[in-house]
Amino acid sequence: MKRVRLGAGGEFDLIRQFVAGEENGWDEIMVGPGDDAAVLRDGWVVTTDLSVEDVHFRRSWISDEEVGFRAAAVALSDVAAMAATPVAVFASIAATRDVDLRALNRGLRAAAASVGVPVAGGDLSRSPGPLFVDVTAVGRTAWPVQRDGAEPGDDVWVTGTLGASAAAVALWEAGEEPPPILRAAFAAPTPRVDAARCLVEHEIVDALIDLSDGLAGDAGHIAAASGVRVVLEEERIPVASAVVERLGTGRGRELALHGGEDYELCFVTDPGVVDVAYFAERHGLTLTRVGTVTEGSGVWLRSVSGEERRLERGGYDHWAAT
Amino acid sequence: MKRVRLGAGGEFDLIRQFVAGEENGWDEIMVGPGDDAAVLRDGWVVTTDLSVEDVHFRRSWISDEEVGFRAAAVALSDVAAMAATPVAVFASIAATRDVDLRALNRGLRAAAASVGVPVAGGDLSRSPGPLFVDVTAVGRTAWPVQRDGAEPGDDVWVTGTLGASAAAVALWEAGEEPPPILRAAFAAPTPRVDAARCLVEHEIVDALIDLSDGLAGDAGHIAAASGVRVVLEEERIPVASAVVERLGTGRGRELALHGGEDYELCFVTDPGVVDVAYFAERHGLTLTRVGTVTEGSGVWLRSVSGEERRLERGGYDHWAAT
Repeated sequence: MKRVRLGAGGEFDLIRQFVAGEENGWDEIMVGPGDDAAVLRDGWVVTTDLSVEDVHFRRSWISDEEVGFRAAAVALSDVAAMAATPVAVFASIAATRDVDLRALNRGLRAAAASVGVPVAGGDLSRSPGPLFVDVTAVGRTAWPVQRDGAEPGDDVWVTGTLGASAAAVALWEAGEEPPPILRAAFAAPTPRVDAARCLVEHEIVDALIDLSDGLAGDAGHIAAASGVRVVLEEERIPVASAVVERLGTGRGRELALHGGEDYELCFVTDPGVVDVAYFAERHGLTLTRVGTVTEGSGVWLRSVSGEERRLERGGYDHWAAT
Repeated sequence: MKRVRLGAGGEFDLIRQFVAGEENGWDEIMVGPGDDAAVLRDGWVVTTDLSVEDVHFRRSWISDEEVGFRAAAVALSDVAAMAATPVAVFASIAATRDVDLRALNRGLRAAAASVGVPVAGGDLSRSPGPLFVDVTAVGRTAWPVQRDGAEPGDDVWVTGTLGASAAAVALWEAGEEPPPILRAAFAAPTPRVDAARCLVEHEIVDALIDLSDGLAGDAGHIAAASGVRVVLEEERIPVASAVVERLGTGRGRELALHGGEDYELCFVTDPGVVDVAYFAERHGLTLTRVGTVTEGSGVWLRSVSGEERRLERGGYDHWAAT
């Protein structure tokens, strides 16, 4: 079983405890804890993603159908982050009486169907507390792409635009209703399954992750797993225009770096191999080079004036924030 | 995708809603919702099992380590119920601050290690409410045994003894501390992985299930899935002796039929093919013939005097009991 080096942060210390005592040599496990998903023999990919009311979402923000959609979409995003093809999702739900289970189910199934798979099982319970939805997503790949292949000289890229989901949360938390485009980024993220497979089919990706913790945090996972330094270029960060309009460029960059939950892809390639126009035409998705890989460690931000500062890991560290 | 007919009961109505809209023909899914676990292409078996504080257990009853052990063991019991070999477990945990995560982890890993597999991944979150542990267990089998193969003339068997786990719960709920042997039945059930594989290797099993809902409920699942009637013989039910000592024979039978959470196996075979002595020697486990399969539907109990009455589905229907 291959283990992936983990980055800094309270949650990761806990995950380390969970895996520290594992024996090596489980011959059915190709990639164990620490990457976006585990990889089992024959390229089966398994990942679980837990959504807890009042930790990951509030029911005053989104409908029960959206809770279901989002829970499945974020789990499927981890399958995409291994460049795998989804096979099925399983949903365990503990719900209070006021939850509309039909609507929650519609959302789960819609997210699964959006990538062509069924809800193949799960478990149901009442909950005396908040609504819990735990989604296990299963996929297959002949060639899982991990976090640990970045090398000095590589470029760092992201798909789409960033910060919209975190901006929606910031507005909700401030008592405002976010505009529809920001709201949708939180409520109905798109797992980048086809985009990830396309990148891998073109054999240009050295490392791949999905952006759940914010660009700074997730680039930090790649840096830690690969044993390299990532330098992000501040003015290249593709902040969603609706975020800039509503909250300004500076706040938008902060949200893109530390807000999290964009569920776009961040990937690392050799320089000069990415065909942005082809990708836009095929997937309707922008690709932006946001930085480079050098020797060293950690994630650094280079400002327009050329100054570099090391970024602390940020983002919604729900666990540490208890 | 093959779908399994479900028995009666509120939880099953809800599960029906969850699967009712699924399309057939998902070509990676061999067995879909309704059995103990889903079976994917190449015989991969996936099941999820949810443990919620104050629904499935109380932290005043068992330690955090036992919570972890039990959560993984009951998920692995569903892998056993497909006669599959476990490969890995994944654990999603939402915990309040007072939960000892190291202890919980020890328990999860001990249960996984008891059947030779690692904890290969998972997710962690804080919980604003109860402790929530969802375990996904993955296994493999060349020959999954389902619930739907019972035929008139078959015999119905169970492994081990029944009622001890439910007796422990009954005593706790009455404010008493259960004796260690009853307590252990609840806190540390044994997934019958080797026993199930042995039965299948001898090619004698027509239908197989694990006893999570009580013998009446689980025999009802077999009856519904197979389109047959199951007649249980009251005096043959192997109530654990510690239950009889503490609560008497009548109460013990009630707990065995309706209490649930024994995590023994219930299986159906042709008459005369089970070698009880061989099984006891190899697995240290008693086998008891508890009834027969006839034409018809439902689960019936035949008393010592020969009277038969139809059993309503009972057991801990946590969902309906909200």
